[in-house]
Amino acid sequence: MIKAGIIGSTGYAGAELVRLLLGHKDVEIVWYGSRSYIDKRYSEVYQNMFRLVENVCQDDNMKELADAADVIFTATPQGLCASLVNEDILKKAKIIDLSADFRLKDVKVYEEWYKIEHRAPQYLSEAVYGLCEINREDVKQSRLVANPGCYTTCSILSVYPLLKEGIIDGNTVIVDAKSGTSGAGRGAKVDNLFCEVNESIKAYGVATHRHTPEIEEQLGYAAGYPVTINFTPHLVPMNRGILVTAYASLIKDVSWEDVRAAYEKYYKDEYFIRLLDRDVCPQTKWVEGSNYVDIGFKLDHRTNRIIMMGALDNLVKGAAGQAVQNMNLMFGLDETEGLRLVPMFP
Amino acid sequence: MIKAGIIGSTGYAGAELVRLLLGHKDVEIVWYGSRSYIDKRYSEVYQNMFRLVENVCQDDNMKELADAADVIFTATPQGLCASLVNEDILKKAKIIDLSADFRLKDVKVYEEWYKIEHRAPQYLSEAVYGLCEINREDVKQSRLVANPGCYTTCSILSVYPLLKEGIIDGNTVIVDAKSGTSGAGRGAKVDNLFCEVNESIKAYGVATHRHTPEIEEQLGYAAGYPVTINFTPHLVPMNRGILVTAYASLIKDVSWEDVRAAYEKYYKDEYFIRLLDRDVCPQTKWVEGSNYVDIGFKLDHRTNRIIMMGALDNLVKGAAGQAVQNMNLMFGLDETEGLRLVPMFP
Amino acid sequence: MIKAGIIGSTGYAGAELVRLLLGHKDVEIVWYGSRSYIDKRYSEVYQNMFRLVENVCQDDNMKELADAADVIFTATPQGLCASLVNEDILKKAKIIDLSADFRLKDVKVYEEWYKIEHRAPQYLSEAVYGLCEINREDVKQSRLVANPGCYTTCSILSVYPLLKEGIIDGNTVIVDAKSGTSGAGRGAKVDNLFCEVNESIKAYGVATHRHTPEIEEQLGYAAGYPVTINFTPHLVPMNRGILVTAYASLIKDVSWEDVRAAYEKYYKDEYFIRLLDRDVCPQTKWVEGSNYVDIGFKLDHRTNRIIMMGALDNLVKGAAGQAVQNMNLMFGLDETEGLRLVPMFP
Amino acid sequence: MIKAGIIGSTGYAGAELVRLLLGHKDVEIVWYGSRSYIDKRYSEVYQNMFRLVENVCQDDNMKELADAADVIFTATPQGLCASLVNEDILKKAKIIDLSADFRLKDVKVYEEWYKIEHRAPQYLSEAVYGLCEINREDVKQSRLVANPGCYTTCSILSVYPLLKEGIIDGNTVIVDAKSGTSGAGRGAKVDNLFCEVNESIKAYGVATHRHTPEIEEQLGYAAGYPVTINFTPHLVPMNRGILVTAYASLIKDVSWEDVRAAYEKYYKDEYFIRLLDRDVCPQTKWVEGSNYVDIGFKLDHRTNRIIMMGALDNLVKGAAGQAVQNMNLMFGLDETEGLRLVPMFP
Repeated sequence: MIKAGIIGSTGYAGAELVRLLLGHKDVEIVWYGSRSYIDKRYSEVYQNMFRLVENVCQDDNMKELADAADVIFTATPQGLCASLVNEDILKKAKIIDLSADFRLKDVKVYEEWYKIEHRAPQYLSEAVYGLCEINREDVKQSRLVANPGCYTTCSILSVYPLLKEGIIDGNTVIVDAKSGTSGAGRGAKVDNLFCEVNESIKAYGVATHRHTPEIEEQLGYAAGYPVTINFTPHLVPMNRGILVTAYASLIKDVSWEDVRAAYEKYYKDEYFIRLLDRDVCPQTKWVEGSNYVDIGFKLDHRTNRIIMMGALDNLVKGAAGQAVQNMNLMFGLDETEGLRLVPMFP
Repeated sequence: MIKAGIIGSTGYAGAELVRLLLGHKDVEIVWYGSRSYIDKRYSEVYQNMFRLVENVCQDDNMKELADAADVIFTATPQGLCASLVNEDILKKAKIIDLSADFRLKDVKVYEEWYKIEHRAPQYLSEAVYGLCEINREDVKQSRLVANPGCYTTCSILSVYPLLKEGIIDGNTVIVDAKSGTSGAGRGAKVDNLFCEVNESIKAYGVATHRHTPEIEEQLGYAAGYPVTINFTPHLVPMNRGILVTAYASLIKDVSWEDVRAAYEKYYKDEYFIRLLDRDVCPQTKWVEGSNYVDIGFKLDHRTNRIIMMGALDNLVKGAAGQAVQNMNLMFGLDETEGLRLVPMFP
Repeated sequence: MIKAGIIGSTGYAGAELVRLLLGHKDVEIVWYGSRSYIDKRYSEVYQNMFRLVENVCQDDNMKELADAADVIFTATPQGLCASLVNEDILKKAKIIDLSADFRLKDVKVYEEWYKIEHRAPQYLSEAVYGLCEINREDVKQSRLVANPGCYTTCSILSVYPLLKEGIIDGNTVIVDAKSGTSGAGRGAKVDNLFCEVNESIKAYGVATHRHTPEIEEQLGYAAGYPVTINFTPHLVPMNRGILVTAYASLIKDVSWEDVRAAYEKYYKDEYFIRLLDRDVCPQTKWVEGSNYVDIGFKLDHRTNRIIMMGALDNLVKGAAGQAVQNMNLMFGLDETEGLRLVPMFP
Repeated sequence: MIKAGIIGSTGYAGAELVRLLLGHKDVEIVWYGSRSYIDKRYSEVYQNMFRLVENVCQDDNMKELADAADVIFTATPQGLCASLVNEDILKKAKIIDLSADFRLKDVKVYEEWYKIEHRAPQYLSEAVYGLCEINREDVKQSRLVANPGCYTTCSILSVYPLLKEGIIDGNTVIVDAKSGTSGAGRGAKVDNLFCEVNESIKAYGVATHRHTPEIEEQLGYAAGYPVTINFTPHLVPMNRGILVTAYASLIKDVSWEDVRAAYEKYYKDEYFIRLLDRDVCPQTKWVEGSNYVDIGFKLDHRTNRIIMMGALDNLVKGAAGQAVQNMNLMFGLDETEGLRLVPMFP
């Protein structure tokens, strides 16, 4: 039995980790970290867990936690994980960080986009970017995994094979992304009130959203050259789901079959990636509650562009599900253990 | 491996059966019945099942199905199951009927409320009303189970112990119920369009809804005398969930502890019933996707009434989940097999 | 031109007052009060008012405001209006209080349910309960109007004629009410976040909600005897709208026509009350954005009860619209001025 | 008093025309056309109009209607208006066509994208494209106005000034649009059921949506050269609203002030276009129920692109409101008559 601790277990991503790990036959949660609710019963903070979780919330004591747990999930604001991690802890427990602290290899880029000092740059090179479908083997060997962002996972997986195969020009990539409101977290802000979000849609963080450099770095690896993109997130009146609509100019004369073959080359054996049939556009509802990413595309010869579309559940494949997938790899388990969730519809 | 067939697999309740049975380790679905989509791939009708279900939809051939399956779920409009069932079929397969055909013991009451002739009244006495928490032992012996309605399950379970213990007057019971829109089915009707339902709430079927006699019959058994109630369903702009707010006059001088004890007497060992803590009101979101019923209550000594509240997921405990629970009992499996689903929040 | 000032103009009810008064040909808003946003442009707080309102928000200086305005709307938390009102102010300006401070005639009841001391009990007898359809003549003469609560308006108007005509027993009245989330205000609370409210419904304040004594007092006047009721509010995932489903036992043997006649006796000339056709149930969407109350009913002879249903927009007839209607009466204008809004659908 | 007739008055756009014209002091609706509901009371089809409209629905008799009305609105499927219009009718009444029949000047483009034969190509050159802010003077002289599509209005107005001023390259324009569900109409289709739309987002009509050539034609006029674009519509779980996020490459070295000046050059005196402050992104909710278009933009020097954003209410400025605006111009009224609606929030 793997003992797991969660720092930040009362945010939405942390709560989703709890939901998934409760259904994982090889894991026991031993630490429900939550600075905001210390000593409060977890099931009072998340009443859906009533009678399923008897524990109370504990403070963020990473040192003590490392003694108690085999794996630590940090579902916390940027900067916290980096400020707590050290050699002593990493010797005792593997860390899967759901924040952005170890996602960018270049500390300067991190500090520029996140406006905070990085407290543990010495681990940047060691940390593995936990996009399992791409870095599977490295994840298996890792003791510190940077779990990718929700927008990032969906954006990269939708675009990656076409860059890798030289079908599109990386610097023409435009990612127009749409997210459910759980991505904004459980903080009590006027902007996220029901009446403000419902019956409305807006873009935000235009040209400045922090997931931009993360997408660019990973797409750059795929392309083999530095890539600069436009990334525009939107807030959608729904709880869960991310839809990515990505545009790029074609630099090869390709047919639908060629593009399909490029996707299949990388994804055909991937359990969690579903390449949709021709002309089927992904919908976030079709993946809700599951760890799947659904991908479709459309060639537009009028404009010589391709439209790539991906959908996932931001709390599962975009956060907690991917973290569990990483954990499975790090501990030598079946990668799908605890994650063979059937999407819930409606 | 239990072989299961579903007649009406492309309605919302049928699709939920598919979701649940795919996660049930002892069941294999061998028949995806759907008169509307014969020969169409099931995963084209429910794209969330893409790559999870390869089957195509089949016609409603109950005879052939009885040869192929050990258990048949009928998630069909009223009248169909009664028109198809016969001794030959019941000898080959157990039937769990999600329609109302075998829920009411009195054929006259059925014909009066449903306005159709009952085609198999000879099975009414044999059929077991599949509310597992109340009729568990009978369900185990049964080959024909009438799976209760969604409103009914929530209403009965919320009120039952207090009638049984003589705490309330059955003829003062008023059930004000609120349902998500999946309860209205997947038929293409203007009334159920997004723009008609969203940002609105309404009562419907006031004083005439067909679940009324079903609730009355079952509550009458509990009370030991015939019970006539008011039942008012409402349509709520959400996909899933039923909330029942039930009112009744007290006929005993009871404390909170007394009422709590009455609920515990019947439910304290029930896996799927969660009695909430004092002053906690159930919310449909806390049970979404799961087979739980959450129950709370509030005494109002000013009016000498009690307000009983229950919440469940109409497609799970209100339909498919309860059907699977019945199946588990009928086949001697652990009652919770395939149903230990953690509610999804948010 | 009537000069109007609003204290609490940045809450949802205050903002709706702004929307309505901008469309009122005889009114000019001279004061946008908002303690939280002093000196901030109003249109930055409510971007829908961009280019329509150039003013900045001002502090709650009732004295200064009384010099500047002919009418003061207080859309503020309980207690504030009572703490600010005095003879000097009332000599200069009429006050329409959207809080509960002057709704209950009995100061003890107020202090018991609101848990605060009443700071101006000397005005309780003078204050007119501003339910225009019932107290029209008194409102016209008044300088201090207590604008009714949203739940209250809908509950009273749905039930009033039948009590007045002795058709129902007041002490059997049960009001099961459902409200959109704007009724919860614009405060930044976790409970009102999109992800907490969406896809869920719950009761709250069961047997303890503060609108209860207000409904009871007014229904008592109608009945001619003290009335004790059950009132249960529910939170619905929609922005606007209140639906009331009220139950009562019949104490007269009445036909549909009799009940209809009772409603017509009081409402047939009322511009803002629409008595729906037989068997039509009100829906909140049908009144959205307007000052209408839609009322329907259903007799249930099986239980000897009647189900009365009412729907209104909680921010219009339930708050700001009713306040403007009161203002029209107090200033001798056409009662419908600025309020002939066509409900918006969808 | 202008007598107005509406063909297709029971679709969502037709119903919105009714809402707006009921509030227009110079117009009387004399004809509620609706092939689906002939002889049915209009207020039974749209219960929000109860007591506001007493008329019954009439058949689509354009000839008779032309005798009765000064202006005819056709809010009907493609092809109908073209099949009915003729010289006799145009001599008697002005026509404002909300369908696509007269929007495209090139009949071949129309027939290619709409897959139907054009029945009145002889009027294509006469018809004026009724985007008032751009073709105001022509609209004033016209007797046949092609009212622009909802996506189109939002897309064109957001991009037009920058093309006109040569700031962006027309062939790099990518329009990613998001629409509320009322845009899909009131037809009873499974895809538009509440449970299918709610909690989901999807793209549709990718690279094939019929508004594409309409946008291209108009943007081509602005650019002075033929323009080919990508246009991708998305369905959002909300009733009303369109948000356009448009991307284009800069071909001039411009500052924020330069771009702002370009927008102001064309829009600064426009009543219905609100240029938002720096860094403010439009939200559909801020314009709901009104005839406004809100426009904002963001320069991204990293990618040498600009992101242009526009929001409008698809049923008002995107359909009925614009039609009324056109009518006002055609009849010499104040352009804003009946359209000074304050956006409703929340």
